[in-house]
Amino acid sequence: MTPDIAAVKAALAHLDIEERDTAIRSASRDFFWYSPVLKPRLDHVRADFVVRPRSEAEVIEVLRVCHAHDVPVTTRGAGTGNYGQAMPLAGGCVLHLKHMDKVGEIAPGRVICEPGVLLKDLDAACRAHSGQELRMFSSTWATATIGGFVAGGSGGVGSVRWGSLRDLGNIIRLRVVTMEAEPRVLEFRGEELARVSHAYGTNGIITELEMPLAPAHDWVDLLVDFDDFDAAMGFADDLANEDGLLIKLASVYEAPIAHAYFARIKPHVTPDSNLVGLMVAPHAMDGFLTFLGRRPEGRLIWRSDAPDWDRAPGQVFEYGWNHTTLRALKVDPAITYLQVRYAFPEHRVLVRAMREEFAPEVLQHLEVIRENGKVSLAGLSLVRFTTEARLDEIIRRHEEAGALVFNPHRYTLEEGGRQKADPRQLDFKREADPKGLLNPGKMIAWDDPDWSYDAIYAWPGLRAS
Amino acid sequence: MTPDIAAVKAALAHLDIEERDTAIRSASRDFFWYSPVLKPRLDHVRADFVVRPRSEAEVIEVLRVCHAHDVPVTTRGAGTGNYGQAMPLAGGCVLHLKHMDKVGEIAPGRVICEPGVLLKDLDAACRAHSGQELRMFSSTWATATIGGFVAGGSGGVGSVRWGSLRDLGNIIRLRVVTMEAEPRVLEFRGEELARVSHAYGTNGIITELEMPLAPAHDWVDLLVDFDDFDAAMGFADDLANEDGLLIKLASVYEAPIAHAYFARIKPHVTPDSNLVGLMVAPHAMDGFLTFLGRRPEGRLIWRSDAPDWDRAPGQVFEYGWNHTTLRALKVDPAITYLQVRYAFPEHRVLVRAMREEFAPEVLQHLEVIRENGKVSLAGLSLVRFTTEARLDEIIRRHEEAGALVFNPHRYTLEEGGRQKADPRQLDFKREADPKGLLNPGKMIAWDDPDWSYDAIYAWPGLRAS
Repeated sequence: MTPDIAAVKAALAHLDIEERDTAIRSASRDFFWYSPVLKPRLDHVRADFVVRPRSEAEVIEVLRVCHAHDVPVTTRGAGTGNYGQAMPLAGGCVLHLKHMDKVGEIAPGRVICEPGVLLKDLDAACRAHSGQELRMFSSTWATATIGGFVAGGSGGVGSVRWGSLRDLGNIIRLRVVTMEAEPRVLEFRGEELARVSHAYGTNGIITELEMPLAPAHDWVDLLVDFDDFDAAMGFADDLANEDGLLIKLASVYEAPIAHAYFARIKPHVTPDSNLVGLMVAPHAMDGFLTFLGRRPEGRLIWRSDAPDWDRAPGQVFEYGWNHTTLRALKVDPAITYLQVRYAFPEHRVLVRAMREEFAPEVLQHLEVIRENGKVSLAGLSLVRFTTEARLDEIIRRHEEAGALVFNPHRYTLEEGGRQKADPRQLDFKREADPKGLLNPGKMIAWDDPDWSYDAIYAWPGLRAS
Repeated sequence: MTPDIAAVKAALAHLDIEERDTAIRSASRDFFWYSPVLKPRLDHVRADFVVRPRSEAEVIEVLRVCHAHDVPVTTRGAGTGNYGQAMPLAGGCVLHLKHMDKVGEIAPGRVICEPGVLLKDLDAACRAHSGQELRMFSSTWATATIGGFVAGGSGGVGSVRWGSLRDLGNIIRLRVVTMEAEPRVLEFRGEELARVSHAYGTNGIITELEMPLAPAHDWVDLLVDFDDFDAAMGFADDLANEDGLLIKLASVYEAPIAHAYFARIKPHVTPDSNLVGLMVAPHAMDGFLTFLGRRPEGRLIWRSDAPDWDRAPGQVFEYGWNHTTLRALKVDPAITYLQVRYAFPEHRVLVRAMREEFAPEVLQHLEVIRENGKVSLAGLSLVRFTTEARLDEIIRRHEEAGALVFNPHRYTLEEGGRQKADPRQLDFKREADPKGLLNPGKMIAWDDPDWSYDAIYAWPGLRAS
């Protein structure tokens, strides 16, 4: 199988094709550089060309032609992932879905749209139509696409109420094009959704989504400051357990994260501030303030509905989830991170144990989430990076203690996930991408079914720099 | 203190006063007759007259005049409570709020209204305005008022998602008139709400409410049949733990409740059917059916979005909560009930233990609820009544096993609640009703602070028949 790039470009010349070197290089990258492990390994990755289809028919055409000429196809939305999800390890074609940004039918509780629409534009359309919004979104809401979120993300702002994208009901329907001599268009619901959601586009291209909606609110952003980390963590956890208080975000930042890395917040906190960031529905503010009044150790330092800072901090969710790491990195390039799941009911105990063992090398950044109906904690811990060996050691200790780590220093689905093959995704790849041309190198189960996970997987097909 | 009924009636003659005997008797009763304990004790209770104010100003006038002449005032909405909440034990005035049924401002997530509006009319107004509805309502939605629900209820349909009325955020604001020489109008929010919510009108009259709203959906009613009770209970519990599946009701009916007492459902079940009744949002149906597909032991026998019965069963919620008891009573007058709380995480274990000890004398009717952020179970168990002593024994055994019983065979706040005084309610009664004229006999803490709770409290002021 030798890809015939020239033949494909000629056959697709009537489409919107990008050939400028800087643009191709830019479209071949995501936020993989969050990881000092991935950075040196993937920094050179570059597609041969970028194509930007305007319709499902053009997606089909691209896939048919690339299939015929054995050209790999890696699909991307905005490229805001940070696991190298959207990076074309073998070069070839980057399928950029930015033109496929139409919002279709909006109904009570659901919306139909194309994959390339930005999360913020989709929210704006749903709000204008009927006062609705997405149940959850990544902190890259302003720049990321819904297709990229579903294919490469797992949850985010809103997961404190609705759980994860993988949970039943958080995706209604996906329409998918296969990578075959004659691409097929399939509609997936129910159990079938797991084949292609969070599959990095390794086994089909999503051309339409039907997503559930929640009521839109003018969420009030809040920052609450605590001297004590445990008090901050308990506050956020307990608040999320208040069934009558509608919230969309509860983030916890161990000291000195807020002071050290959040420039606009810094003047209002100290190095000892353990900060909680919240989004609360306006009609829940009375109840929230009642809850706060019961915990005098929490100091409300910012509420966006009564701003009193010289310079507002901006959206509170843009301090949370992956944005925390981004802000820390900008100040201190030695910072990297982990993605940890602390399961109920031992979630607080586990966090305390990890904090005792690793602070300040590892600083706790927690996001309150729901998992299997229970409030628990996701950690996007900030790590002061020294060596890969030490990073692996820290991860190993978390796992030994009982925390689940989604390793963000790996570019395969399995290593960034639960470290085992997903037979639903693998089976569907066999059917939908028999030549293995979709986002190659991202599914270990396809390339090396007997892989032991003892060390970082280095895909042999990775094109050299 | 001798009430001067004649003077009050004369002073209020320009208001809408009811003097016909049958109408007074009817307005002096609620659903207390669910209880074979309360029935003989309260059956004779009768007010001297009924007044139906049209405005807050008229409420103030009634209270001022009654206060001046020492006439007790018992407030009622539709009288659908079943603890004798709205029954005028000392006679006097029944303050009937049916004319105060105006719906005021509706905004995203909240509504302002008067207490006498029916739950169903309030929902209709909110839906027509902006596609919203109440977070929770009693199964008497079609006939009950919002004021009665807040003053006399605790939760209901919707509590599986939003918890109880007592939870922070589930009531936003209450406007209350006091019973003094010169009645005051007070506005309560936050911690103050607990003074008068679920206080049976013993310490103030609610004249306006601000309630939170949720998005309205065309809820799909579902009935799922199981051979095995544990499977039915597990299904309902686990479904409510699916964070991405939006539901409003999950009821469980042990065999043979559905066959024995649900006439329209009977042709579709057997005496061995353990039935689960559900309300699922339309956009969650795909996810729900996926969940159901994983549990082949559950047979979907009814879905209101694809009706296939000769005669539809009507609203599924009208089989749940207190309507279950009502339907059973109509078929078999020997049936009464308990109100039990089985707390997480031992809820299923506790139900199994009670079932083992008491079936079929006690049949399990469960409602899935949220309490302190966790899915747990409320029991409105059907009891085959024999004697008061046996009923007390059954309750005692439930309490010994670790279940909390809200005894529906008592007419006081404390006995029907947590069997202790609520100092917030008592303190406010001292301030707002110094003569003790509001719904007398319902607050033990006011009448007999040293009461031991060893036996049923019999208020000495109860007017003889």
